[in-house]
Amino acid sequence: MKHAAGSASKGGDDGGSRAVGQRSSADPAVVHPLLPVRLGGCPKTVLADGTPAPLDIAYAYEDVAAGELFGRPAEHGLERWAPLLPPLAAPGLGEGNTPLVRLDDGTWIKDESRNPTWSHKDRLNRVTVSAALLSGAPGIVVSSSGNHGASAAAYAARAGLRCAVFSSPDAPPAVASFLRAYGATVLTVAPREAVWPLVRRISDELGYQPVGNFTPDSHTGHPFGPEGYKTIAYEVFLELGEVPSDVYVPTGYGELLFGVWKGFHELELLGLVGRVPRIHSCEPAAGAPLATALRTGRPTAKVPVGESDAYAIDCAVSGYRGVIAVRESGGAAHVLTDDQMAAAQVELAGQGLWCELSSVAGLAAQRSSGQAGADDGPVVCIVTSSGFKDIATASRDTRHPPMPADWETVRAALG
Amino acid sequence: MKHAAGSASKGGDDGGSRAVGQRSSADPAVVHPLLPVRLGGCPKTVLADGTPAPLDIAYAYEDVAAGELFGRPAEHGLERWAPLLPPLAAPGLGEGNTPLVRLDDGTWIKDESRNPTWSHKDRLNRVTVSAALLSGAPGIVVSSSGNHGASAAAYAARAGLRCAVFSSPDAPPAVASFLRAYGATVLTVAPREAVWPLVRRISDELGYQPVGNFTPDSHTGHPFGPEGYKTIAYEVFLELGEVPSDVYVPTGYGELLFGVWKGFHELELLGLVGRVPRIHSCEPAAGAPLATALRTGRPTAKVPVGESDAYAIDCAVSGYRGVIAVRESGGAAHVLTDDQMAAAQVELAGQGLWCELSSVAGLAAQRSSGQAGADDGPVVCIVTSSGFKDIATASRDTRHPPMPADWETVRAALG
Repeated sequence: MKHAAGSASKGGDDGGSRAVGQRSSADPAVVHPLLPVRLGGCPKTVLADGTPAPLDIAYAYEDVAAGELFGRPAEHGLERWAPLLPPLAAPGLGEGNTPLVRLDDGTWIKDESRNPTWSHKDRLNRVTVSAALLSGAPGIVVSSSGNHGASAAAYAARAGLRCAVFSSPDAPPAVASFLRAYGATVLTVAPREAVWPLVRRISDELGYQPVGNFTPDSHTGHPFGPEGYKTIAYEVFLELGEVPSDVYVPTGYGELLFGVWKGFHELELLGLVGRVPRIHSCEPAAGAPLATALRTGRPTAKVPVGESDAYAIDCAVSGYRGVIAVRESGGAAHVLTDDQMAAAQVELAGQGLWCELSSVAGLAAQRSSGQAGADDGPVVCIVTSSGFKDIATASRDTRHPPMPADWETVRAALG
Repeated sequence: MKHAAGSASKGGDDGGSRAVGQRSSADPAVVHPLLPVRLGGCPKTVLADGTPAPLDIAYAYEDVAAGELFGRPAEHGLERWAPLLPPLAAPGLGEGNTPLVRLDDGTWIKDESRNPTWSHKDRLNRVTVSAALLSGAPGIVVSSSGNHGASAAAYAARAGLRCAVFSSPDAPPAVASFLRAYGATVLTVAPREAVWPLVRRISDELGYQPVGNFTPDSHTGHPFGPEGYKTIAYEVFLELGEVPSDVYVPTGYGELLFGVWKGFHELELLGLVGRVPRIHSCEPAAGAPLATALRTGRPTAKVPVGESDAYAIDCAVSGYRGVIAVRESGGAAHVLTDDQMAAAQVELAGQGLWCELSSVAGLAAQRSSGQAGADDGPVVCIVTSSGFKDIATASRDTRHPPMPADWETVRAALG
């Protein structure tokens, strides 16, 4: 029963977590206790632009038996990595342990659509819903028109917490069904700017814990969130048996980006590898605040946002975490047009992988970078979600009109 | 690189397959060579009702190092089980190795929505598209309005084969997008009865190999198909470390049902277990041909089909394979109303799993059977697919109207 118990333990104890506190990304000597969860960033340290420093989780790495931990086989459920995560108080759904699929040219696709709600967000929500449980909150509140909202709702339902999701009336129809599926209260508030004060009020008056950001003018992020994402790095290392040369990451607020970097960085801290891969941010050209921050040397940026069908990652603000990931790893900031992403989407569908437009930004960047394949290790592109979440999916005009049943018509259709 | 290579090998050789031929389910002494693939059933043996006996694959079990094979950790990709499968000529997508998720009452859910195209069908299509490649066919042809068609299209694209999918103009909108995603030619021929002769003509004149059935009045099925499904039984045994008491299987034509039975039966043949679980067929009450066949003692049945939202498993004909699975295992035939399935769907969503209505027929049957949990082993319900495939999903009326941004409205919505 070893594996089975592991894949679905309903949590409760800390499972051997070596987490020690919330640490400032501006000054690693500043460590706050694990609770309360500080959603506004570090109260003691600020960045050069005056925004609060994001926090992430610090561990007693010297107490982690890294050889033993990474010597065990892959397994579903983040509890597989319990020593290197905050306490997983919320029960799991067998998240993670997603496959690497190899394309003909040798590029590896980490297919995150194989998660419980079919996106990478499940890794984050296992950890953030755990934080809400640890905090004694009666529920969580989320602002999301897509994968994050549905995933948060699923983990809240599993944990017996209430869930409020602020969504957009313009969410794609399949996504609207998805958001409602897990029994959350879906709030389609207009105008959009009114959401922030309502999130804060639900938090203040009802005690629901926000799963996401609390700082509208820069992205500070949930201190626990990227801890879930970093398990992607662990899995890639475990499966490939080596460190990639480059990892391309679809980038919205940069939390996945930072998580992946942190995972590889920890492998280095633990003495398992000698270097980290170059971590590449991959943003839609319509916004791309992280590229702006990196170009201008600022810790965060806020930019005007244009239209993009890559709605899941089309953001106005970036966070310092993204800067850390790209700078520390020697990666680059890529900016993609919708056409470049659409081409990557077609390429992957031709290999049997139907992916959301936003989710192929990594492959789109790799393809447009002119980098044919590095000679210092494999190239990995993270694909975050399935094609079911796209705007065009399930609109009525994707239906096929009936055709006559004669052989000539069918023969002609087959070309 | 061991695991990585395994999870995505692009096939070509037989990978150590011990398959020896296509064997009659009416007389195990009748074994045809592996090729040509016999889609019309056994040409030498007939069942009591005069229909052709289905074929499945026979193996040289004495040449399988079962202890070694089942001693290795779980891994993505059916090549993990190559000795007990037909040659996997078609490249994979990391199918299988789906998690078991434990419900509060101890029931295990085998979540097949974690496959490459988010349903169990990927296990079948890895094997049947391999059969088409081994046969030298230029393409495949499929009749399906849902998961099977999309999965077949994905594996055909990956293998470089052409794919024709006969679909219904009434397919749910999200499914219509899904079917088109992988570049197959989607043929929405009306009336439905005209499809069979067209499938045959595409096969005869263009050489495309049908992936599915070739016998409209009973379900004989593709000889290779259930071989993919049987890996579910291997995985359940590997993860639980014991044989379940009961396995509940959503049942359309009964191929998944038979595959799961065959997998456990093989574990017994290989000396790894002492018994097989009771295998339960779970059909919509609107049709339920297998329940009719079992009740009347016939090898197959054809019944009138009423309306059901469980469109993926609402079938008019059954096959002898289903009879074998239920009879040989001492299982039972369950017949479910849409309301019973809807209740199971709500229960699972409340645990964080959003499942297609058809796909929860197994849990619905377990819940309505009054069996609180067997004392001779764990109970497993197979869930085949995600809620994105349901008829109601992504219809315009699932959208949320905008609501005013005042606190009273939001507070009231939260109850």
